[in-house]
Amino acid sequence: MKNDVNRQVLLKARPTGIPQAEHFELVERPLPVPGDGQVLVRNLYLSVDPAMRGWVSAVANYSEPVPLGGVMRSIAAGRIVESRHRDWQAGDLVVGMFGWQDFAAVDASAIQAKVTDTDVPLSAWLGVLGINGLTAYFGLLDAGQPKPGETVVVSTAAGSVGSCVGQIARIKGCRAVGIAGGATKTALCRDAFGYNAAIDYKSGDLDAALAAACPKGIDVYFDNTAGKISDAVLRHLNVGARVVICGTASIASWDPIPLGPRVERHLLVKRARMQGILIFDYAARYGDGRADLARWVRESKLRYREDILDGIEQAPDAIAGLYRGDNLGKRLIKIAVP
Amino acid sequence: MKNDVNRQVLLKARPTGIPQAEHFELVERPLPVPGDGQVLVRNLYLSVDPAMRGWVSAVANYSEPVPLGGVMRSIAAGRIVESRHRDWQAGDLVVGMFGWQDFAAVDASAIQAKVTDTDVPLSAWLGVLGINGLTAYFGLLDAGQPKPGETVVVSTAAGSVGSCVGQIARIKGCRAVGIAGGATKTALCRDAFGYNAAIDYKSGDLDAALAAACPKGIDVYFDNTAGKISDAVLRHLNVGARVVICGTASIASWDPIPLGPRVERHLLVKRARMQGILIFDYAARYGDGRADLARWVRESKLRYREDILDGIEQAPDAIAGLYRGDNLGKRLIKIAVP
Repeated sequence: MKNDVNRQVLLKARPTGIPQAEHFELVERPLPVPGDGQVLVRNLYLSVDPAMRGWVSAVANYSEPVPLGGVMRSIAAGRIVESRHRDWQAGDLVVGMFGWQDFAAVDASAIQAKVTDTDVPLSAWLGVLGINGLTAYFGLLDAGQPKPGETVVVSTAAGSVGSCVGQIARIKGCRAVGIAGGATKTALCRDAFGYNAAIDYKSGDLDAALAAACPKGIDVYFDNTAGKISDAVLRHLNVGARVVICGTASIASWDPIPLGPRVERHLLVKRARMQGILIFDYAARYGDGRADLARWVRESKLRYREDILDGIEQAPDAIAGLYRGDNLGKRLIKIAVP
Repeated sequence: MKNDVNRQVLLKARPTGIPQAEHFELVERPLPVPGDGQVLVRNLYLSVDPAMRGWVSAVANYSEPVPLGGVMRSIAAGRIVESRHRDWQAGDLVVGMFGWQDFAAVDASAIQAKVTDTDVPLSAWLGVLGINGLTAYFGLLDAGQPKPGETVVVSTAAGSVGSCVGQIARIKGCRAVGIAGGATKTALCRDAFGYNAAIDYKSGDLDAALAAACPKGIDVYFDNTAGKISDAVLRHLNVGARVVICGTASIASWDPIPLGPRVERHLLVKRARMQGILIFDYAARYGDGRADLARWVRESKLRYREDILDGIEQAPDAIAGLYRGDNLGKRLIKIAVP
């Protein structure tokens, strides 16, 4: 690693489905120079998130697509090496939208948080204390509104969001049932993340497994997948159930929109609710969420796993790997020693 | 009409889709005798509602299906002719679940309301002040939460529920856009019910018509149809939109569940909500709703149309007629002179 070169991962071609390695290219550029009101951040960890698929998609989305030839948008954790903004000093550890690159010269507004709880590892700020934990926290508690004794079902239950949802559901006194692919992940759900039951959707009859794991029906469904898993879960909703739409990992492409069983009758008969959430809408309340999450981490009530790739060269294939199910925890790329 | 005979419409066969005339039979039975705690009601108006399709369906629903050979379940308005319950007197006008029959001997719990505002016609108690108006009122205001200046779209906009939704939306300061089938109904929407715009879904490009009628997008969709109409509306939702699922008139059968474009991506990107409602969940608040609705009727802010069939012989085909679109207002059957 040379400190006078900025390695960047650029978007080379626009995918219609899941972004693959060939949609990106790794280039070397001169070190950027921060302007007035900006900071220069040395990235240490880059985040890899399922949502990045949406960020490069030309299809209508909640943010402008990453332009072709632009640095891949990403949350990252790093250290400020030069500050031209009075609120920030060189040496500050920060998390923000710094992109897949070694160095980012960004407006201070790109910084999402100053890393304060340094007893928790820096990498956790991109996972359990970051977008993943916060998504689980606000998605479950705000949109899902679980009540003690209710049954909460989570898809991609061993994932970085799902594993937090299941554990927060348990903290709130609910029965937590995880759905994941394969025996390794379902074992993780039960043994590492404390789910009351875990279902392998790749094995056997999902309907029968849901009925067995949810004898009192399903009150909250935290949906990270859509697709056939959700179709099955919807058949088991209780009256007044809440479905939190957080991700659509099982859908390879939304262009054109794939067909599935219509949901209206389920929602009508069960007076149920489906609601999409976007974590950025909760930005004003991140601090409250992080405080709870950090406390639960310290109390060992909230456990997390990481899948840390080594080196920015791993970035181009990293999103595709998420969708292949390569990882068993929050996927990060470590690009420098903290 | 003989006063010693009780004509009843029984469920003869269980339909899988829309109930047709041949699923019912009209029989003559002896006058029932009320037991202790019961009242004998002389029905005057029988209600005909799209929801009755669900009441005779064997598919999971919010109430037990009407048994084969049983009297068709129905809301009705009538006069108590004999009371064996101390809270009720002969002569009281009442609305309740009295069934498709001349006379009903029922527990007092079957009575939903005593008719008080006698300046409003009795028939209105089965429509604009009854289940239809209350469904519009609570569905729109409670689940839809319209704010002044927002755009509210309604399907089956000229119907007995839809026409109330559109007018209540206008009363609340919203732009109301109705979707209905055919020029007669869209003219009704504009001229009788005060919609800002009305779209004929049977004519032309629904997407283009929605874009033209909703230049600022759609904030609330009150859905009485499901199907292709809803598929189009969902493409125009604004961030934070609310979809109220009230009925599924365009779906001929839910067994098996028909396919449609998956909704998860719309809900996620727009952080939108879809919610099924059932009016019976609001029973404790009917009085509040009726008070507002009656006031708006008196103030001529809330207009309604009725389609009154003459005689109980019309009952067997009456539900099928709703789904054929025969009616231009709340469908009732008048079976005796009030």
